Amino acid sequence: MKATGTDGIEAVTRRARELIPPDGVVTDPARLRTYECDGLAHYRVVPALVVMPEDADQLAGVVRACAEHRVPYVARGSGTGLSGGALPHAEGVLVVTSKMRSITDVRPADQRAVVQPGVINLDVTRAAAPHGYYYAPDPSSQQICSIGGNVAENSGGAHCLKYGFTTNHVLGADFVTADGEVVRLGGDAPDSPGYDLLGAVVGSEGTLGIVTSATLRLVRLPEEVRTILVGFESTDHAGAAVSAIIAAGIVPAAIEMMDALAIEAAEEAVHCNYPEGAGAVLVIELDGAAVEVAAEYDEVDRLCRENGSFEQRVATDPAERALIWKGRKSAFAAVGRISPDYIVQDGVIPRTALPEVLAAIAELSRTSGVRVANVFHAGDGNLHPLVLFDEEHEGQAEAAEEVSGAILDLCIEHGGSITGEHGVGMDKAKYMPRMYDADDLDTMQLVRCAFDPDGISNPGKVFPTPRLCGEVPGRHKGAHPLQDAGVAEVF
Amino acid sequence: MKATGTDGIEAVTRRARELIPPDGVVTDPARLRTYECDGLAHYRVVPALVVMPEDADQLAGVVRACAEHRVPYVARGSGTGLSGGALPHAEGVLVVTSKMRSITDVRPADQRAVVQPGVINLDVTRAAAPHGYYYAPDPSSQQICSIGGNVAENSGGAHCLKYGFTTNHVLGADFVTADGEVVRLGGDAPDSPGYDLLGAVVGSEGTLGIVTSATLRLVRLPEEVRTILVGFESTDHAGAAVSAIIAAGIVPAAIEMMDALAIEAAEEAVHCNYPEGAGAVLVIELDGAAVEVAAEYDEVDRLCRENGSFEQRVATDPAERALIWKGRKSAFAAVGRISPDYIVQDGVIPRTALPEVLAAIAELSRTSGVRVANVFHAGDGNLHPLVLFDEEHEGQAEAAEEVSGAILDLCIEHGGSITGEHGVGMDKAKYMPRMYDADDLDTMQLVRCAFDPDGISNPGKVFPTPRLCGEVPGRHKGAHPLQDAGVAEVF
Repeated sequence: MKATGTDGIEAVTRRARELIPPDGVVTDPARLRTYECDGLAHYRVVPALVVMPEDADQLAGVVRACAEHRVPYVARGSGTGLSGGALPHAEGVLVVTSKMRSITDVRPADQRAVVQPGVINLDVTRAAAPHGYYYAPDPSSQQICSIGGNVAENSGGAHCLKYGFTTNHVLGADFVTADGEVVRLGGDAPDSPGYDLLGAVVGSEGTLGIVTSATLRLVRLPEEVRTILVGFESTDHAGAAVSAIIAAGIVPAAIEMMDALAIEAAEEAVHCNYPEGAGAVLVIELDGAAVEVAAEYDEVDRLCRENGSFEQRVATDPAERALIWKGRKSAFAAVGRISPDYIVQDGVIPRTALPEVLAAIAELSRTSGVRVANVFHAGDGNLHPLVLFDEEHEGQAEAAEEVSGAILDLCIEHGGSITGEHGVGMDKAKYMPRMYDADDLDTMQLVRCAFDPDGISNPGKVFPTPRLCGEVPGRHKGAHPLQDAGVAEVF
Repeated sequence: MKATGTDGIEAVTRRARELIPPDGVVTDPARLRTYECDGLAHYRVVPALVVMPEDADQLAGVVRACAEHRVPYVARGSGTGLSGGALPHAEGVLVVTSKMRSITDVRPADQRAVVQPGVINLDVTRAAAPHGYYYAPDPSSQQICSIGGNVAENSGGAHCLKYGFTTNHVLGADFVTADGEVVRLGGDAPDSPGYDLLGAVVGSEGTLGIVTSATLRLVRLPEEVRTILVGFESTDHAGAAVSAIIAAGIVPAAIEMMDALAIEAAEEAVHCNYPEGAGAVLVIELDGAAVEVAAEYDEVDRLCRENGSFEQRVATDPAERALIWKGRKSAFAAVGRISPDYIVQDGVIPRTALPEVLAAIAELSRTSGVRVANVFHAGDGNLHPLVLFDEEHEGQAEAAEEVSGAILDLCIEHGGSITGEHGVGMDKAKYMPRMYDADDLDTMQLVRCAFDPDGISNPGKVFPTPRLCGEVPGRHKGAHPLQDAGVAEVF
């Protein structure tokens, strides 16, 4: 893609004004500035244009105009992402889906809902609940984050241990590729002939195109939900309890762990009444048929005691359940009470490596003097270390950054991954070559060429080195199509 | 790809002899002939060369030789596929994985097994069972079919209702792309940064490359399994019972339906002791914790009676359970007893459309005079109509073919799919344009270009019209890279 200067963006703006009602085309600098970052405020770029299409046709029209004029665009849902995936492009268009909030269809008999991308995660559950169903993936931001963003980031949440990630709940999608083609991915049938590109699109972080409609799986509301708060002396004891529960073949809906520092922060912020003096707490949730929950509870209770728990409390009403979860879900923000600045890290390890990696993180913290609070989805090995620092103190930000990176190295070393649910976005593109070799990354970027031949869809995200597609003929003649293509000038 | 004549295949043969021990390189015409078809014997082609690599390096070396000389190749596991996906290419190499049968690793604590592609499906369960686990996807051919073939076809089975398809159980793979790159897809972590290409590879029917190692999810062996055989007057009654069970929020491990003609065939073949005079039977299997199974059973029992069942029998020992399943699993072959020839059709519909589609199939059968036996995974709407004919009678084969196609049209009309678990292969490529528009198919084939720029991997399968990649520069300049590329001459 050659830089198009202002000509391209002006042409796209004109086209957008033809397609979209006036209040959905934003060029006023003050309003543009409100979109300068997503949930990761560390990166800030003001877009050249913001559009808010009201339907799939308007959205596809804008993308086609971008393709025609080779103008980069970035899609944005509610802007709650934590890896900078919705960071705008200074010479590009920000496509905001906040006016596409229709729940098109709820079909309880088929366990399906069809929604527009701007629909708020929790609103799907609100629409399905009267029929006895809910939408399972529950990122902590579920009260404000959008389904389109969830699809782009393959969002997780506390209940992914039992229910899986967003990718396990998106059954079909209408999708506008970066060259403006409208394709239908997946569908109602359990198997789609040809390639299942839906799985590749879910979690592609806006680099292939934009979802304009998603068919979601609805899950039956369980007969009973039992939420248990368990206090332990240490994360070692809590970790051993987690291993014992999983080894017993029990799959709780959620097993969340917080360490002493995270507990302290949450307690100070929301007074969640967590056990005093605990070195770690587990929030365990069991759901299903009442008989099943009762049987599982007995075993979980026993296994926690056997592994050194000193306090166990079952929520006796919805308010108590909500308070237990409030402590956990507010932990990220609460850490702001005990540290002026912090990095929310997101990495994954095989569950069995938990004790070893937790010990290594503690050691990193000790040797560097950087405080680390641990909050995580213990059941699926998704760590969220909160690395604390004070920008006012010289060297602390750099030390925190270093510890934060070292934690990702630990994840990779233990067969895990650099992101569990927050995505690569801007923030982790530089770590991709530590996870994948050149062939792996090439294959991914060649797949991107099928959707985005000009590299205009969320450029600069996910892949550390952008690549051109299609300008070098005869790939099979020996020359790699992406080599020697003047890539450095692209973005 | 230009035809390479015999030079290419000779060069690949020479290279194969350098890489692979002598008994793994087959050129003897009599031995080659034994590979002329897979489970769909309707299509037969003798390959130019058969190789049986013993490890991933040998396999990748052969693929690289094919890429270098632009020789087509086809991968084959046990050859049990029912859509002709492993049909050889007359001028190509058949890569047989039957010497890659190592179960590399079984890690019960992580619920993982790592296996080579030639490993037999049931052997994974045999290896995991001593640890309390099993491999859930269970195609009817599970005693002989291979994991590599299962991955290529995204195989289903009777228990996919509760446990999902192969794609839900493959967590990672080592994969040789058609240009000889070795890539790692997915992994142990629940989320893979970048694109999840594993989902695209699972079910790609050998058109992107070959899996050389698969990391599989193991599922805990349930505390109890209860197998129930229920007789109904008609498929209408049985269908209503299925709907009632699902609507009650029960997810049995399996709900299989057979109609009168299928019951007759199975009874005659294996004496499975199905209810006499039944117009339909359901085989329902419940599994899980004993308390849960007991509670679910009471409700299933009640719902079947409410919907007109006249006989209900619970297997009281493993032998009785095995006999109930033998009736179901032998149904395809058993139909050979009541008809000299038959087509095994495979289509999917949303479960809620079952009564309507069954009625339409019955109507098709009435008006055409072609007998149709119905065996299907009722819980997930995966139909297997067996369309009966006698080749000796003029016109019957054509009439059966027509009914068989009309059934797929019914599936598409009702929002379903042309294949539930058998794949597109040779057999259904012609139906792909009925399911997908040109943009959808283009996007898939452009993705193929990322893996298989020369179209050498299982050419002629899945896509009705082969396309060339990469020879037309400047896709974004308006010309589609796949247009005007002399495609008709390619294969």
